[in-house]
Amino acid sequence: MGNRLTFEKPLGMRDTLPFFYEQKQKSEQALTETMTTWGYQFLDTPMLEYLDTVGEASAIDETQLFKLLDQQGHTLVLRPDLTAPIARVAASQLKENGYPIRLAYSGPVFRAQQIEGGKPAQFDQVGIEYIGEDSVYADAEVISLQIEALKAAGLEEFQLTIGHIGFVKGLLNEIFENEEDGDVFLRYLYQKNYVGFQQAVNDSGIADRDKETLQGLLSLRGNRTRLEDAKELTNNESSKSTIDELIKLDELLEQYGVSEYVSYDLNLISHMNYYTGILFEGYAPRIGALLCNGGRYDQLLPAFQSEASATGFAVRLDRLVEALDKENGQKHGTIVLFDDEYFSEAVETAQQLRGKGEVATLQHIREVDDLEQFTNRYATVINVRRGGESE
Amino acid sequence: MGNRLTFEKPLGMRDTLPFFYEQKQKSEQALTETMTTWGYQFLDTPMLEYLDTVGEASAIDETQLFKLLDQQGHTLVLRPDLTAPIARVAASQLKENGYPIRLAYSGPVFRAQQIEGGKPAQFDQVGIEYIGEDSVYADAEVISLQIEALKAAGLEEFQLTIGHIGFVKGLLNEIFENEEDGDVFLRYLYQKNYVGFQQAVNDSGIADRDKETLQGLLSLRGNRTRLEDAKELTNNESSKSTIDELIKLDELLEQYGVSEYVSYDLNLISHMNYYTGILFEGYAPRIGALLCNGGRYDQLLPAFQSEASATGFAVRLDRLVEALDKENGQKHGTIVLFDDEYFSEAVETAQQLRGKGEVATLQHIREVDDLEQFTNRYATVINVRRGGESE
Repeated sequence: MGNRLTFEKPLGMRDTLPFFYEQKQKSEQALTETMTTWGYQFLDTPMLEYLDTVGEASAIDETQLFKLLDQQGHTLVLRPDLTAPIARVAASQLKENGYPIRLAYSGPVFRAQQIEGGKPAQFDQVGIEYIGEDSVYADAEVISLQIEALKAAGLEEFQLTIGHIGFVKGLLNEIFENEEDGDVFLRYLYQKNYVGFQQAVNDSGIADRDKETLQGLLSLRGNRTRLEDAKELTNNESSKSTIDELIKLDELLEQYGVSEYVSYDLNLISHMNYYTGILFEGYAPRIGALLCNGGRYDQLLPAFQSEASATGFAVRLDRLVEALDKENGQKHGTIVLFDDEYFSEAVETAQQLRGKGEVATLQHIREVDDLEQFTNRYATVINVRRGGESE
Repeated sequence: MGNRLTFEKPLGMRDTLPFFYEQKQKSEQALTETMTTWGYQFLDTPMLEYLDTVGEASAIDETQLFKLLDQQGHTLVLRPDLTAPIARVAASQLKENGYPIRLAYSGPVFRAQQIEGGKPAQFDQVGIEYIGEDSVYADAEVISLQIEALKAAGLEEFQLTIGHIGFVKGLLNEIFENEEDGDVFLRYLYQKNYVGFQQAVNDSGIADRDKETLQGLLSLRGNRTRLEDAKELTNNESSKSTIDELIKLDELLEQYGVSEYVSYDLNLISHMNYYTGILFEGYAPRIGALLCNGGRYDQLLPAFQSEASATGFAVRLDRLVEALDKENGQKHGTIVLFDDEYFSEAVETAQQLRGKGEVATLQHIREVDDLEQFTNRYATVINVRRGGESE
């Protein structure tokens, strides 16, 4: 490959250097501690899975999968998410524990990039799966935990937008006999292309009353009063029952004390065919991209021959760190400098500091190239030879 | 792939279920906290690297690499270790900080398996790299930190065996004009095949005095008095100077207070052509496999166009957990059971416990399949409806 590429990394692959690593670590710890205290148990699954099992059960498009052949000729994928692998484990090794079961994870996932567009091909997700319960209490727990975990990580300004896939689908099923005709509108909502949606409504041959209903759908975004408005929009029983579910959810979130972080959007479609009930997306004002998302999916575990319903969320750890926007450039503990003669005093000094949980680096003074540059990295400098300490 | 393989994972790939995950987490935390207090800064590198850069700089044999093609047709590898990627980072993005630099890592590495032999194809390594200093003080720090980190993880019985690649190489260079002739003997030592070594000595055409020297080499294993014996074995200046280095190391380890965990083995060859100075391997009596290893390598950074010398170690996290052999089956905090009527009391109860850092799971009683089996997982059961608490 020659010298030009000696330091190159594959497309979309990044190094995590010490300062960002520390920030990531702190945020991850706050999230995982919160999940643990709420009774979620962490597990991990391999980075590589069979394409035919987990690869196909995943919500991620096949063009985004990293594929490779193993020595036996099977196609493997680098895991694109952890929901499908955890469904595999929950439906097999953990099934004997009985449902419901609360699981959590934290680790890298992979998305192959076609072109250099600044998107990472590997990033960390921290998330939960609440498996084997389809009550609105489970949805409320997941959403409240999502909010409390972000707060624990130090995030102050953020908003969770909650929707219900069943509301839109109910409306579309009522209007269109043919499911594919309705999917056109679903896809505009999924793409958040509201202009395209309105155009498509105008251009369609449906009744004026139905056009009004679909146009009205676009205004169903905001606080909980929008849920009451939604009930007025339609007589469809299936759609109305999803609103009752959201109203009950709102009451439970009130009792969890997290209502200020929540708004509703009945146009929200996070994925074309993955979620089956309540779903949500989280945004922070400082970043323009999705911070976290989640919802109920009832068709993933059946792919692993299990009837259980499930709900969960995943946080993009890199974006959380970005949203937290911590200050850079902090100094790194104490440096204890020594020479041959004073080594044992230096060891003693360093070990005392370490014993108190402080960071102490021990360094032979002769081995440092540029002493000023080197010591500049540390908050405190102790030169054992001189017996002195300086800031 | 059909139902038969629905739950299958690729060869050598494992799930980490909650109990083992917790044990791993605790051990990892003890190791990383110790490294941090000693002044090491953590970083991470991508799971995928180019074969032509990091893949070829790695100490791992090419047959053990997981390879894949990216969309541009380059060959990528799943990282087989972190030493080579960290050398890449140290020689590029971090070079401006000046040497020496102390780095640490914790994460998965990959080794493709040819056949199902019970060996994992993915496992976690926790390790350090002390880059840009070739003094014996650096070696002493690395070995002492290795010992203190294992102690912090709760490991009591273990032994680090220390050798020096320069001693054996000095002897062989003196005896054999042709390097390949010497390599035959080096390979026997690397394979720890001492019978084969003796046979090869007997069958060789070298002088009797040289045969005695090579036979004598095999007895150079044990405490520090073996270092004095080693000096008697040869007049070779190059080999003698490595013994002086080890004697100085032993003095420094004494001052670090870690001598009881250390022994010497001048036959130790951890890798055919990777280490260039002091090297070591760690074993615990409860496991039959290598727990950790490390040493000095001076030729890796030059592969990344940097002159720096380096030393470091890596711990196999799965084997450390195995060596610690923790007790299984612990119970999982408090379960707070509620029904529709008592939800807000239940939330309050759970949040109080969580606020104290305790693990509290909130559960609607109607949603549990088998209440006895379910509550049996928890140390404490609170049924808010009845207002009672039971063990």
